[in-house]
Amino acid sequence: MSAASADIAPTGAGQAVMARLDELAAFTDEPGRITRLYLSPSHRAAAAQVAAWMEAAGMATHVDAAGNIIGRLEGEHPGLPALLLGSHIDSIRDAGKYDGPLGVVAAIAAVDEIRRRGALLPFAIEVLAFGDEEGIRFPTTLLGSRAVAGTFDERSLAARDIEGSSVEEALRLFGCDPAAIPGAARRRGETLAYIEVHIEQGPVLERIGTPLGVVTAISGASRFDVTVYGRAGHAGTTPMDLRWDAISGASEMVLAAEAIAKAAENLVATVGTIAVPNGATNVIPGLVRFSLDLRAPVDADRAAAEMRIRAAFDAIAEQRRLSVSMVRYHDAAATPCDPALADGLAAAIAGLGLDAPRLASGAGHDGMAIASLCPIGMMFVRCKGGISHNPAESILAEDADLAVRALVDFILSFDPGRLQRPPIGSSS
Amino acid sequence: MSAASADIAPTGAGQAVMARLDELAAFTDEPGRITRLYLSPSHRAAAAQVAAWMEAAGMATHVDAAGNIIGRLEGEHPGLPALLLGSHIDSIRDAGKYDGPLGVVAAIAAVDEIRRRGALLPFAIEVLAFGDEEGIRFPTTLLGSRAVAGTFDERSLAARDIEGSSVEEALRLFGCDPAAIPGAARRRGETLAYIEVHIEQGPVLERIGTPLGVVTAISGASRFDVTVYGRAGHAGTTPMDLRWDAISGASEMVLAAEAIAKAAENLVATVGTIAVPNGATNVIPGLVRFSLDLRAPVDADRAAAEMRIRAAFDAIAEQRRLSVSMVRYHDAAATPCDPALADGLAAAIAGLGLDAPRLASGAGHDGMAIASLCPIGMMFVRCKGGISHNPAESILAEDADLAVRALVDFILSFDPGRLQRPPIGSSS
Repeated sequence: MSAASADIAPTGAGQAVMARLDELAAFTDEPGRITRLYLSPSHRAAAAQVAAWMEAAGMATHVDAAGNIIGRLEGEHPGLPALLLGSHIDSIRDAGKYDGPLGVVAAIAAVDEIRRRGALLPFAIEVLAFGDEEGIRFPTTLLGSRAVAGTFDERSLAARDIEGSSVEEALRLFGCDPAAIPGAARRRGETLAYIEVHIEQGPVLERIGTPLGVVTAISGASRFDVTVYGRAGHAGTTPMDLRWDAISGASEMVLAAEAIAKAAENLVATVGTIAVPNGATNVIPGLVRFSLDLRAPVDADRAAAEMRIRAAFDAIAEQRRLSVSMVRYHDAAATPCDPALADGLAAAIAGLGLDAPRLASGAGHDGMAIASLCPIGMMFVRCKGGISHNPAESILAEDADLAVRALVDFILSFDPGRLQRPPIGSSS
Repeated sequence: MSAASADIAPTGAGQAVMARLDELAAFTDEPGRITRLYLSPSHRAAAAQVAAWMEAAGMATHVDAAGNIIGRLEGEHPGLPALLLGSHIDSIRDAGKYDGPLGVVAAIAAVDEIRRRGALLPFAIEVLAFGDEEGIRFPTTLLGSRAVAGTFDERSLAARDIEGSSVEEALRLFGCDPAAIPGAARRRGETLAYIEVHIEQGPVLERIGTPLGVVTAISGASRFDVTVYGRAGHAGTTPMDLRWDAISGASEMVLAAEAIAKAAENLVATVGTIAVPNGATNVIPGLVRFSLDLRAPVDADRAAAEMRIRAAFDAIAEQRRLSVSMVRYHDAAATPCDPALADGLAAAIAGLGLDAPRLASGAGHDGMAIASLCPIGMMFVRCKGGISHNPAESILAEDADLAVRALVDFILSFDPGRLQRPPIGSSS
């Protein structure tokens, strides 16, 4: 527990959130570990449990045509535009307990607290538990939040999992009508904003020593396939100065990408894979391939880093008599969070006597899809050791408690009129 | 043709050598490319052709119990100790024409020339065509030359090829009696020295611009399995300064090994393979493995480089909060060539008006085994583009001609009394 939060008496919501996250972890496709794939039987069972919790918190629930569980608490009169809260309840294989479910369970706890206080709000609240955020079962991603945002691509229905089941078939087994997906799209006038609480999945808040942070943007990402071409040669008979060694060139490039990313602010560069195809211990590599992943919250920064990296790679190749190709095979723009929502989240966190550091999200989230529907904001919760996508993923109950309290305070202070993007009637 | 050799009228031996190498290339286990594995039918057929050429050059031939083809030309009276010449006629899969066969065919051509001149020598000459230099078919190597040297390990007879045939079975099919292998060992008193002509398999002579070189030693070699341990992390959520990135550390190590090898004289370091086991584009590598191959003609230089590399790796790991293990799994001492034989070869080459540069052999050769029997010497022939172990392996006919002429002159000038190691009677 950080010094900053030590003075704040817990509400007990943190323990309840942790208990529900433990309960949710029991819904799995693979006994002994957490694997809850989109539209699987364990996803269906978890959805029923989540709906029950929503109803216990006073919400009316339904499952939409994409398998999203939606709970709604009306405002001071029925039918008001809604503040959306949520996250996803699908998981990777062998997942932790917090990536996704924390945002759903914390939102339900916040709604429960607001209803308990009898607050009458000038807007409705909806909690959404999305599926397919992780994109593990099918070669698709964000199907649930895209359906809500109205950007669902019908061709996704034909995507098949490794056992041959299509999304369409899986939706029917889940109890959904695929033909009704267009009707699951929300109109902009119905939605005010989207707020997601999520485990940070990184080490920044822990390093700062504070439980909560405000997300500035979901980083854009580029991925590249880099190939370095040299000349294979005999490891014993080729003197050092007569080599065209692809691995030495690739090593310089890896370090150059690292140095460029370090020199930039708010940018990360990762070489996750490297190989010498058909390489052998006693052969100087004639060809090396490696992957490069670039992420930044500001697209222009990412583009500038790509240019610097390309120039550095070319210079290294030229100096070593090698050639290099750097092929971009993935490119996703950054999704900025709404500044007013971010300020509101920061104010709620500060109201608890905590620092409210701003940080980018290097991982993708449902907000990337929802941003086309309404302004988005995200709150990060400190992650033990920065470890995520791993059974060892962990948060503190005190931090969960603070997250719920900050979310409650945010909701109670939420003023749609302060949003920079007019949320109502801007259907263009 | 180099300027240095342009003044020397060819004898015609070069064209004959090239023609025979083309003929030998037709003996293959795999039509369309050269693959002549130890004790295979094509090896047997090639052996018969080589024996025929030996006999045409005036030699008495036999096949020893390990499948070596041995031709003998007596000296001024029968039974004198022999100067051994030779190389191997087995090949890798998809080989070039010159690695091995050049030394056998050039030796036969030299003997033919000496016999043609009617020279009466105070020693016999034997030409040996070894098998299993490449170590491709069986998990063994140098079986032929070890049998001659008396260091054949009987356990090798049980080694099996990929189809399940043992060396023992293959020897019988070849026509050999495995039980007679101990008797194939030559006594030190019977042998004076061993001289091998071989394609360089590297780019040094071509770079110098001269056709022939004198080998100072067959380099010793160490091989290491290097593992760099960091901490895996999310490529998007982990800032650059909070990473324990194994691939960046490994890249620095690759460059450090290269720099240490470049700074040393007569040493090569090669990273031939590198991998991130279970790596993914979007995960910071927590573990990287790479191979390291060190070779040097002087064992102390190789040991010193290993120490410097270990220290550099440790310092890089410490600075990056990584750990590293460097496990040696192969260690072979250098085999020095006899200085008097090297001087004799250099004198013969210089006698043709050519430079006689000294260079180490980074590749292994039959001489490594024969060195335990008698002093060895090697002459290298310029290799086009440094390319070997490849169908594109190539030499010039003029260079082959010069090699034969230098070998003839060496033999005619050979004085066993000048050898530093007493060749006769030193059986201890």
